[in-house]
Amino acid sequence: MSEEKSFHMKPEEFRRYGHAMIDWIADYQSKIESFPVLSQVKPGEIRASLPANPPAHGESFDALLKDVDRIILPGVTHWQSPNFFAYFPSNASGPGILGDLLSSGLDVQGMLWSTSPACTELETHMMDWLVGMLGLPQKFLSSQTGGGVIQDTASSAALCALLAGRERATNYTTNKKGANGKLVAYASTHTHSSLEKAAMIAGVGTANLRLIDVDDRFAMQPDVLARQVKSDREAGLTPCFVCATVGTTSSNAMDPIGEIGQICREYNLWLHVDAAMSGTAMLCPEFRHLQRGVEVADSYNFNPHKWMFTNFDCNCFWVADRKSLIKTLSIVPEYLRNQASESGAVIDYRDWHIQLGRRFRSLKLWFVIRHYGVEGLQHHIREHVRLAKGFADWVRNDNRFELAAPVPLNLVCFRHKQGDAANQTIMDRLNRSGDLFLTHTKLNGKMTLRLCVGQTNTQARHAEKAWQRICEEAARLGAAE
Amino acid sequence: MSEEKSFHMKPEEFRRYGHAMIDWIADYQSKIESFPVLSQVKPGEIRASLPANPPAHGESFDALLKDVDRIILPGVTHWQSPNFFAYFPSNASGPGILGDLLSSGLDVQGMLWSTSPACTELETHMMDWLVGMLGLPQKFLSSQTGGGVIQDTASSAALCALLAGRERATNYTTNKKGANGKLVAYASTHTHSSLEKAAMIAGVGTANLRLIDVDDRFAMQPDVLARQVKSDREAGLTPCFVCATVGTTSSNAMDPIGEIGQICREYNLWLHVDAAMSGTAMLCPEFRHLQRGVEVADSYNFNPHKWMFTNFDCNCFWVADRKSLIKTLSIVPEYLRNQASESGAVIDYRDWHIQLGRRFRSLKLWFVIRHYGVEGLQHHIREHVRLAKGFADWVRNDNRFELAAPVPLNLVCFRHKQGDAANQTIMDRLNRSGDLFLTHTKLNGKMTLRLCVGQTNTQARHAEKAWQRICEEAARLGAAE
Repeated sequence: MSEEKSFHMKPEEFRRYGHAMIDWIADYQSKIESFPVLSQVKPGEIRASLPANPPAHGESFDALLKDVDRIILPGVTHWQSPNFFAYFPSNASGPGILGDLLSSGLDVQGMLWSTSPACTELETHMMDWLVGMLGLPQKFLSSQTGGGVIQDTASSAALCALLAGRERATNYTTNKKGANGKLVAYASTHTHSSLEKAAMIAGVGTANLRLIDVDDRFAMQPDVLARQVKSDREAGLTPCFVCATVGTTSSNAMDPIGEIGQICREYNLWLHVDAAMSGTAMLCPEFRHLQRGVEVADSYNFNPHKWMFTNFDCNCFWVADRKSLIKTLSIVPEYLRNQASESGAVIDYRDWHIQLGRRFRSLKLWFVIRHYGVEGLQHHIREHVRLAKGFADWVRNDNRFELAAPVPLNLVCFRHKQGDAANQTIMDRLNRSGDLFLTHTKLNGKMTLRLCVGQTNTQARHAEKAWQRICEEAARLGAAE
Repeated sequence: MSEEKSFHMKPEEFRRYGHAMIDWIADYQSKIESFPVLSQVKPGEIRASLPANPPAHGESFDALLKDVDRIILPGVTHWQSPNFFAYFPSNASGPGILGDLLSSGLDVQGMLWSTSPACTELETHMMDWLVGMLGLPQKFLSSQTGGGVIQDTASSAALCALLAGRERATNYTTNKKGANGKLVAYASTHTHSSLEKAAMIAGVGTANLRLIDVDDRFAMQPDVLARQVKSDREAGLTPCFVCATVGTTSSNAMDPIGEIGQICREYNLWLHVDAAMSGTAMLCPEFRHLQRGVEVADSYNFNPHKWMFTNFDCNCFWVADRKSLIKTLSIVPEYLRNQASESGAVIDYRDWHIQLGRRFRSLKLWFVIRHYGVEGLQHHIREHVRLAKGFADWVRNDNRFELAAPVPLNLVCFRHKQGDAANQTIMDRLNRSGDLFLTHTKLNGKMTLRLCVGQTNTQARHAEKAWQRICEEAARLGAAE
């Protein structure tokens, strides 16, 4: 049989270019501290370097790699830099990247068990492993009434939880009849904005998402929640869902899960626990008190793609009663019917999230957990917390600065006492210098700097240098650019 | 400065293990035809080979790779096999995999322009390139009123489109007040099931999703749609959205976009065009007549991760009026505020989809388009269509079989004339043999086999062998196992 004309990259070419791509990434890892953390390009600069039209004929892989260096790299903000302290981390690792590479190479669809049994079973298995690793309630195990699924992001997980709460509260009729304007959901004024988005998407409406006041540690006040739920119910509305947070985005505040859970039980509300970043800390038993009461949760999620050395995307989402979730999201057209699914002996993850298609994401989790072992993961999490607490001590001991919130784990909220303009100047100058990258929030109406320690390779020397640079910029306040 | 204790994979280790992982994939590509296409494992078999608990201490990369061969591979259904003819394809390629590897290595977050400008700008640029490559209306360009974004799947794209339609029809008040049970959306009885799911999620309700009857080619009947919309409006309901399909999942039917579009204009309904698989064919001008009238669409999407040699996930979604979409999905908490966004000079893709976090997916599209060039992509798409039409001829010329639907592109729907049981037997025996993988649908109530040609490496000899094996199983009908 003669070979047909082909433009495909052949296996031997893939091997050669693949090695080159791996070498590029290894080199990038080695020299990452030499780049400015925050990209310094101006809007439109990257596009201006790209040709207006696609190539009519194929180009060489070498040309591509050259353009990655020339065009792309200047436009990259280096989330993998050990001097990245902004937002929440996105901390990749070698084993995570290689597990994801294998997923790309196999490129299977895991929508049904039968479309690649290993994709479903390894995922269920990793989610069960993590229940034990994080000290989560047994009911989340697939061998009990619950089970876990990998979602893309905490936003999607929150949406799925809200939908399940919405359906459970309306006896699974909203899916059919549509929302009726009477559903009410609850979060705190410090809950992540994705809950607001979920309320919009799910037809609940932001006017029906009650943002409960927080206490002086920025944690939801359970008594305020209880009063609000009671009054909504008395008004003939249908309370259905509460989101409690383990480690808010703004200040890493810890909502009192146990007390909130009691209210949810009393009023039969779905309790979703969002531990997007801080869930990873639960690998260490000494931090688990921060989510005391989690036993009452109906669903829980955290992002290994934030702090557990697993590249994006990888959100772990568990439910205590998988039937509620499946009943909320399942639809089975003829072209997806198959014997394994009809038998009920398997999980079809398509019924556990918004999307139909899904990649083999558990491979990277499997690679990460096996490479580090529980011990290795714990070691690095403890180190990050130790560095953040050390940084908080430096702030506490410096008269110019103050801490703006408690520091339970790896996020330090602090500010210069001179006020918003001073903090804005310090942040802008630091970020423009490229030496490190910090972001801000507002706490009690005041501009507050956030330093989050969670990048894979952040060590003591990086935290020390960050503090040194912050002090330098504080000393320069009032001086011209 | 002394090195701290570390469990991380160092750059030089990453280089070594990365080469090994690339070699594994190159070898996999070389020997892929030696595996049974459909995994032959039983439910629970994969999990039974995995240890009950995670390792306390880290393990070697070699041990991981061995377990990939020993445990994972038997549980993989080989979507990359040239003998995969099931569902819709998921056709990866070398450049796609390596572009995705780079994305994993950089592991940036593209939620805002400022969190990695190149991630946003390359994406906008690729989406603009594709407008020209597919002959889509100019209004979808980012330089006009529209713009494109990469979503994960067509399910998410459809949900975003439905939400934008919902908001536009209710003057952007549903986001705030919640859905009111009066919104109505339209699709056909052959539209993908993700629309039903979107109607559930968006609080519209499946009872308010009208599934319009199809004609004898399984295409939506515009006159039935017009009557239904009119009657819904007269009943005081709020029609808001229509989904028309270019190439349905079941049979690759082509809805008449132009006629549907006229109805949408008359009633001011959001028209979403779903070209999930078949959109890729529009790379070839000779197939564009299949979506005649697309100029009136409010949104359009197709999946390079199906048929355009780009590994999952990569859905391209355009809107004609980006303001509608952004107004539907935007929320801006303090911790995401930044100068670039406030200036209005940049795109923040977080406001274009459900999720907040997003990876650098445009890299793989850029790698694919530059590796193949427009010419290379066109060549392989034309080949796949040629093979499918040739296969349809074999069916047409064989008395035992009949075609069950027109064959506009790369999907052949056919059946043995002996009826459902015979077709089920043929399919089950073929799939169990591992020689090829086919799936089925129901058309006019009859079990129908689907053969979809779209796998990257499917050549004439694979289509020929598929037909030969089908004929063998037809000859064996009535014989015992």
